[in-house]
Amino acid sequence: EEVAKLLELKSQINETGNQKFTLKTPKGTRDFSPHQMAVRSSVLNKIISVFKKHGAETIDTPVFELKEVLTGKYGEDSKLIYDLKDQGGEILSLRYDLTVPFARYLAMNKISNIKRYHIAKVYRRDNPSIARGRYREFYQCDFDIAGLYDPMIPDAECIRIVYEILNTLDLKPFVIKINHRSLLDGMLETCGVPADKFRSICSAIDKLDKSPWQDVKKEMIEEKDLTEEIADKIGQYVQLNGGRQLVDELLQNQNLIKSKSAVEGLESVKLLLDYCELFGTLDAVSFDLSLARGLDYYTGIIYEAVLMGKDTSDSDISVGSVAGGGRYDNLVGMFDSKNKNVPCVGVSIGVERIFAVLEGKLVASNKKIRTTEVEVFVATAQKNLVNERMKLCKELWDNNFKVEYSYKKSPKLLVQLQHCEEYDIPLAVILGESEIQRGVVKLREVSTRAEVEISRSELADEIRKRLQGIQLNGTS
Amino acid sequence: EEVAKLLELKSQINETGNQKFTLKTPKGTRDFSPHQMAVRSSVLNKIISVFKKHGAETIDTPVFELKEVLTGKYGEDSKLIYDLKDQGGEILSLRYDLTVPFARYLAMNKISNIKRYHIAKVYRRDNPSIARGRYREFYQCDFDIAGLYDPMIPDAECIRIVYEILNTLDLKPFVIKINHRSLLDGMLETCGVPADKFRSICSAIDKLDKSPWQDVKKEMIEEKDLTEEIADKIGQYVQLNGGRQLVDELLQNQNLIKSKSAVEGLESVKLLLDYCELFGTLDAVSFDLSLARGLDYYTGIIYEAVLMGKDTSDSDISVGSVAGGGRYDNLVGMFDSKNKNVPCVGVSIGVERIFAVLEGKLVASNKKIRTTEVEVFVATAQKNLVNERMKLCKELWDNNFKVEYSYKKSPKLLVQLQHCEEYDIPLAVILGESEIQRGVVKLREVSTRAEVEISRSELADEIRKRLQGIQLNGTS
Repeated sequence: EEVAKLLELKSQINETGNQKFTLKTPKGTRDFSPHQMAVRSSVLNKIISVFKKHGAETIDTPVFELKEVLTGKYGEDSKLIYDLKDQGGEILSLRYDLTVPFARYLAMNKISNIKRYHIAKVYRRDNPSIARGRYREFYQCDFDIAGLYDPMIPDAECIRIVYEILNTLDLKPFVIKINHRSLLDGMLETCGVPADKFRSICSAIDKLDKSPWQDVKKEMIEEKDLTEEIADKIGQYVQLNGGRQLVDELLQNQNLIKSKSAVEGLESVKLLLDYCELFGTLDAVSFDLSLARGLDYYTGIIYEAVLMGKDTSDSDISVGSVAGGGRYDNLVGMFDSKNKNVPCVGVSIGVERIFAVLEGKLVASNKKIRTTEVEVFVATAQKNLVNERMKLCKELWDNNFKVEYSYKKSPKLLVQLQHCEEYDIPLAVILGESEIQRGVVKLREVSTRAEVEISRSELADEIRKRLQGIQLNGTS
Repeated sequence: EEVAKLLELKSQINETGNQKFTLKTPKGTRDFSPHQMAVRSSVLNKIISVFKKHGAETIDTPVFELKEVLTGKYGEDSKLIYDLKDQGGEILSLRYDLTVPFARYLAMNKISNIKRYHIAKVYRRDNPSIARGRYREFYQCDFDIAGLYDPMIPDAECIRIVYEILNTLDLKPFVIKINHRSLLDGMLETCGVPADKFRSICSAIDKLDKSPWQDVKKEMIEEKDLTEEIADKIGQYVQLNGGRQLVDELLQNQNLIKSKSAVEGLESVKLLLDYCELFGTLDAVSFDLSLARGLDYYTGIIYEAVLMGKDTSDSDISVGSVAGGGRYDNLVGMFDSKNKNVPCVGVSIGVERIFAVLEGKLVASNKKIRTTEVEVFVATAQKNLVNERMKLCKELWDNNFKVEYSYKKSPKLLVQLQHCEEYDIPLAVILGESEIQRGVVKLREVSTRAEVEISRSELADEIRKRLQGIQLNGTS
């Protein structure tokens, strides 16, 4: 029987011992350590609190969808979708974002009103750029309002939510850029751009956050075949940004207001800015004609939040867009057999970038974040007291304290106390033969190393009192 | 330009309007509604609290792994693994459980000590049995202790954790069955079963929770080629269960103790039962020789928690195993180039089954669970007060209340109040022209429909006072 075991072990070694494969996670993915998870859950909890403050429910959908559900929703980016192997049965793909599954969910369940958030991982076979925080598996964190409501009212609440989240996470200063699809369309139309080029010109315009106008203009002329005259007309608009005054000026622009679509967009922006003032977010909002993102979906207002701070913490992480969204009124209809639409507006919080920024800040500030919430460590200075330690742990667990002890029968006191300091456990209870006989314990405050003797019967109350007094650097 | 829009819309309709595909989630998967998510997060929060009470950290790993990581870990069940399509690059599979990724994580990062929980979805191309709550995508909820410690000490804590979780979730009565792999091996050896049949005979034994001994015996003889004599010998053992007395009796069994392995197993069980007594879990623990699950991994103690209650709520959901685990000391070594092992013991909480049981109980008890946490609804009885409602919402949000209002410019009062009742929102603030002029609002307690007039300046304090008084059926 020992031989059988050895043989089995041997066969295991032969199978996997001399591994032919490198031990790694798939390209563009990563594990999260307890420390990273602590930062993440602290950030996500704050974001979820804001969503709940605005009455959001949450839903969940499968990590994969029928391939057909994703087909035709992402334009050129469709090539980045992960497909599952055909193992018989349905043809499946991993979700590429949370918006298309949300639209599928609404259509399938015939839901015409919901305010929901959804936090989950999505998958893109993109070229991972780890230095810039771009992965193939990453969290999305979406809030959306579906339903037929009056213009710009839910849209204004999405902006308020972004505003609250970035404030709560202490990411000031930031700016929330807004623009409107109808205005973009109308502007391009009045500049003389043919309708079939709107999207490709918009994607050029959208590069203005990183490239100077001269480069974008060059792209328009050389790659997208616009005349210099048309490009210059566009340039006059897309370099503009401001507030209500800019809206009013554009509403006076005789060229622009020839387009009904442009006027409609401008009126919408104007109304949204009024609502932003009521919601106290106007100081962070900037009407910006160069914002031209995500036009595969969006049908109305579009917005994007950008951090303005100097990146002092980690030069590898470029501060930039940390939230984006807009109105998409036609997506749900694509799933409905009668093309019944449910108007939607939503925002996606760029949590991966936020995690990276906040992790960088933590490192820079030399602050520690706790990965456990242990309140009391039960230790001993003597050998063979494991039974006594276990009994005491039981008492403390029964009193609902968060308690740890060493899993060795006779651990060294120094090792136990080092563990307490390493994990920032505030209190240690120390047991010895003499204490057990006298019905007492030593209670040690880990940070000051001060110890007092306390009777066993008063221990729970004393711990409770101490914990209230001690400022914990909690993880949430 | 209108024409362009219409054409675009038309093309969308043609693309997807007459859908060729049924609108559904992939086979064996499902969406979770806000109501289901509320039950889930309430259950998961309670479970996580117990893990944290025992000092656990959490980690996360990618949803897919290199296929080679999963190869050779699941025996026959490997055929249930979801593979991704080869789109160039690495060959990937969806994770089948959380234990193998955990072992890969430990080996890859050379971690020899950790106590972690991991809650995430896993994937199995099993035949879904929706009625019995078996899906292809489902949550696993694992707690494991890795590290070289003294015998049965971390093992006893895993059992204490199961005990606390099932108590916290009000799932009494339950029993935690325990057994030991060495005892099973030794028992089969002394009964005369050839070593190469141990696993297949164990899988027959494991059916005793559902089938009578006669059926299992028949399988052993007819399908697994044991003699009747050997089967009967096995039968004498595997129908036994009990506590310490049974251990002591078996330690007197002259046949059994010929096997060193059996004695080792029995001594381990004895020590574990001692520790269970210290931890106050002994009343729920049953030493059960028919427990023979999961022997692809397990090298030592194995355990499984079973609910004993009659299933009053929903006859489709069979109450049964809700947690299982054991010791697996050789898994990490399979990933280490020098086969360095990290001993591990852990437990997996069967949260899907627990969700189903608790959802059934909720339905049976006619209790409502809230899907939002809204505290105050800002309403109006008059038209065109949307700006005033928005201003008031801002004030209340700034005071950190959870606040909703209607996104229509002129909603009907009745519709607004119905929304409050449907979502169990405790308070409504009602605004009208006259109230605005006088600097007051009406504050309505939704459940009693009692209204009082309150000055705007005292509103926040009054709401705070009321909320403390009102018992919320919270979601957590």
